[in-house]
Amino acid sequence: MKLANYLGGRWVEGGGEGRALVDPVLGTELARATTEGIDFAAALAYAREIGGPALRGLTFAERAAMLVKVADVLTANRDAYGEIALANSGNTKPDAAIDIDGAIGTIRYYARAAQPLGAARALRDGGLIRMGRDEGFQALHVGVALRGVAIHINAFNFPAWGLWEKAAVALLAGVPVLAKPATATCWLAQRMVEDVIKAGAVPDGALSIACGGAGDLLDHVDPSDAVAFTGSAETARSIRNHRRVVAASTRVNIEADSLNACLLGPDAAPGSAEFDLLVAEVSREMTVKAGQKCTAIRRVLAPQSVADALSQAIAARLAAVKVGNPRNEAVRMGPLVDKAQQRAAGDGIAALSREARVVFDGGAGFAPIDADASRAAFVAPTLLACPEPGAGRVVHEVEVFGPVSTVMPYRNADEAFALARRGQGSLVASVFSGDAAFLERAALELAESHGRVLALDAATAKGSTGHGIVMPMCKHGGPGRAGGGDELGGLGALWFYHQRSALQGPAERLKAIAESAGSTA
Amino acid sequence: MKLANYLGGRWVEGGGEGRALVDPVLGTELARATTEGIDFAAALAYAREIGGPALRGLTFAERAAMLVKVADVLTANRDAYGEIALANSGNTKPDAAIDIDGAIGTIRYYARAAQPLGAARALRDGGLIRMGRDEGFQALHVGVALRGVAIHINAFNFPAWGLWEKAAVALLAGVPVLAKPATATCWLAQRMVEDVIKAGAVPDGALSIACGGAGDLLDHVDPSDAVAFTGSAETARSIRNHRRVVAASTRVNIEADSLNACLLGPDAAPGSAEFDLLVAEVSREMTVKAGQKCTAIRRVLAPQSVADALSQAIAARLAAVKVGNPRNEAVRMGPLVDKAQQRAAGDGIAALSREARVVFDGGAGFAPIDADASRAAFVAPTLLACPEPGAGRVVHEVEVFGPVSTVMPYRNADEAFALARRGQGSLVASVFSGDAAFLERAALELAESHGRVLALDAATAKGSTGHGIVMPMCKHGGPGRAGGGDELGGLGALWFYHQRSALQGPAERLKAIAESAGSTA
Repeated sequence: MKLANYLGGRWVEGGGEGRALVDPVLGTELARATTEGIDFAAALAYAREIGGPALRGLTFAERAAMLVKVADVLTANRDAYGEIALANSGNTKPDAAIDIDGAIGTIRYYARAAQPLGAARALRDGGLIRMGRDEGFQALHVGVALRGVAIHINAFNFPAWGLWEKAAVALLAGVPVLAKPATATCWLAQRMVEDVIKAGAVPDGALSIACGGAGDLLDHVDPSDAVAFTGSAETARSIRNHRRVVAASTRVNIEADSLNACLLGPDAAPGSAEFDLLVAEVSREMTVKAGQKCTAIRRVLAPQSVADALSQAIAARLAAVKVGNPRNEAVRMGPLVDKAQQRAAGDGIAALSREARVVFDGGAGFAPIDADASRAAFVAPTLLACPEPGAGRVVHEVEVFGPVSTVMPYRNADEAFALARRGQGSLVASVFSGDAAFLERAALELAESHGRVLALDAATAKGSTGHGIVMPMCKHGGPGRAGGGDELGGLGALWFYHQRSALQGPAERLKAIAESAGSTA
Repeated sequence: MKLANYLGGRWVEGGGEGRALVDPVLGTELARATTEGIDFAAALAYAREIGGPALRGLTFAERAAMLVKVADVLTANRDAYGEIALANSGNTKPDAAIDIDGAIGTIRYYARAAQPLGAARALRDGGLIRMGRDEGFQALHVGVALRGVAIHINAFNFPAWGLWEKAAVALLAGVPVLAKPATATCWLAQRMVEDVIKAGAVPDGALSIACGGAGDLLDHVDPSDAVAFTGSAETARSIRNHRRVVAASTRVNIEADSLNACLLGPDAAPGSAEFDLLVAEVSREMTVKAGQKCTAIRRVLAPQSVADALSQAIAARLAAVKVGNPRNEAVRMGPLVDKAQQRAAGDGIAALSREARVVFDGGAGFAPIDADASRAAFVAPTLLACPEPGAGRVVHEVEVFGPVSTVMPYRNADEAFALARRGQGSLVASVFSGDAAFLERAALELAESHGRVLALDAATAKGSTGHGIVMPMCKHGGPGRAGGGDELGGLGALWFYHQRSALQGPAERLKAIAESAGSTA
């Protein structure tokens, strides 16, 4: 089966053999994807000329209603998506739910959040501004929808959520989407787009998908397009350096991998509630989606006196996790997405082992349940301990994109913050402490090198949304190594797809414009 | 005289011969600038390690007081700056005032604007956010000052304002500045920094300046640094593509040249107030600073029936402008900054002439007053007319950075908007019309491809701040060709030097953080 591309308002099959999508448990081929011979220039032009005007003609309320239709279509087909996630990503049911229900929930969140924007089609940023003595001449900042295409280049680990957390915002903004999911798992994204198109839930040209390589897609971007990428730092670099992207000053948002840290407060002794909470959070982050989350915890910082006890406690929890074929109901952790990722994880663990010792790696004779290890892409949950993290380099630089984490002792709070910062910018850090002053201090200290900081004590942990979960009302993206992305939370996310412009002129005219525009504040 | 660099907390002279700074009227050498042999890595490290902590230790109110001190120092030395601007930039008195008084006014504006931030050291973006049923666990977006250096690479046309409109914001944000002014006119910037340092107005390490080439400066940037550049699209590309800038995801803001348009409404016949206002605005924009403003009007769009009359009216005004040595009190327009710019302008006019005819070029036997044309860098005010702008390419692409503009007829409003957009993204457009509905429509139509839109009718023109003037309370920067910059107006500008982070945790802790943080809204 060759997965068709939906471009220029029709289904088109790419040429050649294409690349195989495989079942990471069985090793069997599921489908093929190719964009060979695809005319990306024409696809972008169609989205700009047909999809853009149709979307911009709708009010925010009408676009929100469109999002509800999309979410309803996806909800109706939820079971089919779960099967694809199982087959193509080796997802357990909870893993698939994070991706699929996460996608649907995010779409519905934006549809609800947009209600106050009502009949507006443009945004305003603040109110009228006096610039001098004359009250008749003032200024107003507005945002108008870009007339280009939202080009979304997505990662393999969240084929559903990755597609919709970006597409929902762009469509709500009135900007047509061309999604390019990672080829390895593009089936789920392709199927969702197919269902939405079949249902007529979005206008012609508003939603396109390319399954396979990006080809010369970026050679055709304009100043009015917007490129959002989630994935490796290497691909991020090639996008940032792309000749046409640079020449057109096309806006780019990047979310790349990072070495997210989890920090146990100096007060949290073994047996304390915060100690136990952190143990549970780390083992959950390591095993959910087999650790294939860009937000997953890669480094665990603990007071020197408790680091060993912490390693032992995490290892004990990991030992109880059943790893194997997610078709078996007892299984709690599935495989990596493919053999290439499995090899990369093996290489990464070997690299970390130069500076850290393995505390746990699945135990003697580790074997996945109901699976042929030689055909499947499993990696055992692997915990390492790095005794001298201040002298380490690899442990702060090499991210193993799998169920792998390293415990690191610290001597005092300043050293803990400095170690977290050695990641050179991360998506998220979490802190567990019963000391209110420390939580406050840590949150502000870590904020400079992290896009998000989760600070928890025992009393509030029950309401926590968790270290690894991206909430649509919160900013996503981190500085430096994490790509420098700044996907704003809530309606603020709309600004990436709007041009901000300072209007200066007659106060009465600006008042009229302000009244017809919506505010994201 | 070799201009010393102020780096690493001391004055250091670069090696070699250096590059000469010349008087663009007399052609004489004024000084030399060189950064040969300068250790930029050490300079950045000093700013990060000494200047950063000192600035971050101050509250916003204390930093604002520091800005007032800086402004006072500059005010006290105002006359000396005017002399440098005359000698090195060939500025008339009003030209120098735009640069120097513009700088001082902008610094004082930020000092005043920061008052509501008071004793805060961090920013908050909005208030607490509920994420689920549990009221005890919430989120808050904060902004904390970057721990790196604000690297400001500035343009030759505004050595004073260009330095301070960026430095004032960075210093207020708590981020040390390393300024790299364009070499041709760096004397004024260097002298201002010298005065500020001598007066002890800023902490050690908070302000550095490099006079000469950027050398390997960008090879040493970190994820926590911020690079802001104003200048040519070519240099902008090299910064965006810089290996280390890309690898570190260092944030970059670019303001590049653009082909700003001025649009006369369909209603504005010759003799109407708006017609006359536009004539005055265009000729002012062409001649102030000899047209060397990135915001200057390069394209004038007029209804087909009035385009010729408009050209004649603008030409008549230009003919009355006295061009020459600004030491002569009668002179209203000075030279370009140097012979290289003069040559580039000549090449640009030749290129435009392929698609447009010259309507006015100073008249027969044009000669600058009190100057030797062979040694000086004068360009006569030059107005062109392009009869078929829809078929043109060069007129929308080639910016002549001098007193040069092209009149273009349009058939209807849609064509006018489309022609404005042919600039591929510009800093600013202005519209002159007595038709209120047209002004509103034009403002929103042009907003998508412009960072600022000035919409004027006769009634409000008297309060107008003008097409070319960047106001600190308004966003500066435009999409595409203009560089994609987004320098926010007012306190919003602080965010470029802050890391935005979503804090999630106990509502009580977040409330305490929110109360101690300042809001830019």
